[in-house]
Amino acid sequence: IPLSRTTRCACIKISDRPVHRRSLEKIEMIPASQSCPRVEIIATMKKNGEKRCLNPESQTIQNLLKAISKQR
Amino acid sequence: IPLSRTTRCACIKISDRPVHRRSLEKIEMIPASQSCPRVEIIATMKKNGEKRCLNPESQTIQNLLKAISKQR
Repeated sequence: IPLSRTTRCACIKISDRPVHRRSLEKIEMIPASQSCPRVEIIATMKKNGEKRCLNPESQTIQNLLKAISKQR
Repeated sequence: IPLSRTTRCACIKISDRPVHRRSLEKIEMIPASQSCPRVEIIATMKKNGEKRCLNPESQTIQNLLKAISKQR
């Protein structure tokens, strides 16, 4: 994924599948920039290291990000 | 940083320095888990690729995460 970052977006396709907080290894957020005009949110799954692009416009995903960032 | 993830937290020290949205290459959020009992938020800087651990308990950081995730 990072290879193409200088010329375009990392995410080609946004996943619609539900994502469970406990199955996440990590979440990457790449701010909008000249190389990609929209924010990209990439989840890495614990099980197999699979990466999935999440939809930042989804309220479910916004709630997930909020919940993770506020864990103590 | 990821090398030690199986046994402990990635962040040893939390940065207090202000972080500007435009200087960020990406943000990683690692949910709390058995290997680390607290969420970790790691910023990678555009300029030099430097990684900095941010404080999830800071309202400024929470606002930053929210602002980035809602960019269109």
